[in-house]
Parts: sequence; C-alpha cells; structure tokens
Amino acid sequence: MFKDLETAPKNHRVALDEVLASLKFNDDGLVAAVAQDARSKEVLMVGWMDRTAIQRTLSEGYACYWSRSRQTYWRKGETSGHLQALVELRLDCDGDAVLLLVEQTGPACHTNRPSCFYLTVEGEKVRVTTESQ
Amino acid sequence: MFKDLETAPKNHRVALDEVLASLKFNDDGLVAAVAQDARSKEVLMVGWMDRTAIQRTLSEGYACYWSRSRQTYWRKGETSGHLQALVELRLDCDGDAVLLLVEQTGPACHTNRPSCFYLTVEGEKVRVTTESQ
Repeated sequence: MFKDLETAPKNHRVALDEVLASLKFNDDGLVAAVAQDARSKEVLMVGWMDRTAIQRTLSEGYACYWSRSRQTYWRKGETSGHLQALVELRLDCDGDAVLLLVEQTGPACHTNRPSCFYLTVEGEKVRVTTESQ
Repeated sequence: MFKDLETAPKNHRVALDEVLASLKFNDDGLVAAVAQDARSKEVLMVGWMDRTAIQRTLSEGYACYWSRSRQTYWRKGETSGHLQALVELRLDCDGDAVLLLVEQTGPACHTNRPSCFYLTVEGEKVRVTTESQ
C-alpha cells in the first residue's frame, strides 16, 4: 500500500481503512505520533498510537494516545483539561509515523511547559529553555 | 535526571553526557527523532537514533540516524545529497524523543517530496497532498 502510494500523483485518494490496515506498527503494535501546534507550528510532544487510538482520534476529534507506562488509552488532557483538538492527521511515506496538527489548550507538557521539548543541547551542556507556566 | 529537570528553572544547565546517559531508549536501544525544518517549521520526517547517532549528529553537524531496516548508521542524504544540517537539537521531558531543527537540502523524503508526511486523512479517504519534485 505505502509502496504504491510513493509514486501516486498529487490528489490521488485511497480508502482510509486500507491505509490503516497497512500501517507498520512496531513490536508493541504502536506507531510514533508527533503532535504539532497547527498555528505556531511548534512541535509539542511525541506520543504513541495503535490503530484504535488513531481511529478514536479521528472519530472524537481529540488526540488519543496509548500510554505505554499505564498500558491504557488516554485522551490527552482528559484530567488536566489540556486537550488537543485535531485539525489534521497525516501519515508518513512508510506508514510508521503519524503527524497530528492540533489546537492545543493550555500547555502540552505535563510539566506545564508549552512543549515537551524544553531541553536544548548547547555545546557540552543541556539547557532548560522554558519556564513552567 | 529527567524527573529532576521537570522542576528546574529556565536556563538551568546540566552536563550533556549525563543527560545522554539517562535517555530512555526502547528495547532496540533507540529513541524517536523528529526532524523539523528550522525555517518553515514543517515536520519533515521521523527517524530513529541511538546514543551514537545522537553524538554523531552533534559532532558532525548533520542528522545521522539508525536505519532499522539496514541495521546501520546513515547520515541522511549521504547518497542523495539531501543532507540535514543541524541547527538545534532538543530532548523531551521524559528523555525518549529527540527534536532536530535542521536546514534541509532538497526534499527530505526518499520519494522526492519535501516532507515524508504527504498522506492526509480526509473523511474516509487518504489523499496524496504533494507531488514528487
């Protein structure tokens, strides 16, 4: 499926069900899911999804990940209120990663920072680049 | 290490070596690595890195991934010329993902599209959104 799509012209369409059935899940049945702020384009976090999490995200309109630590589904923000409303869901060329464009309510990170990527390498040091909100 | 950094103030610094030693690699010894165009902010691809790939990326100044299919390191673009010059490398809150801000030469995707995320879900269909260059 993904091999066929490599040479497909722009605007070629295929059935979502067939694409989801062809995703290349890892040994845990998951693909990496990158959440990006649809407006600022900031990369907010990387989570994990199985097919059900992807389908829930699409049908409910909010990002729903698989928690590897808790071994359960979690709608991002279900306790904090920091929901990610889905604007667009994209798949990559080889079907092992998902990109979510989202409208993020509040901070995306559980540390109350806007993004989980607040640690920046600078030479031989790593610097904390944002304050908790 | 990453737990301690959750409450660290902005501009707090720690040694890179200690942070790299604390990364939470998966069973294959890898973390997900998201490459983002530093200027356009477009998410280009998701690759995989072990500690050596991260260190090579930092020391060489070009994104170097671990190829799971070929079981080898590959400097992105080493054959195609479509290199990713490193602008900044960030780590996430729990140390299991890397974000690379890069200057991408040519298309990032092996299909000669600007980004690997050229498949967009639209209702019950998936649409090819960009043409090969």
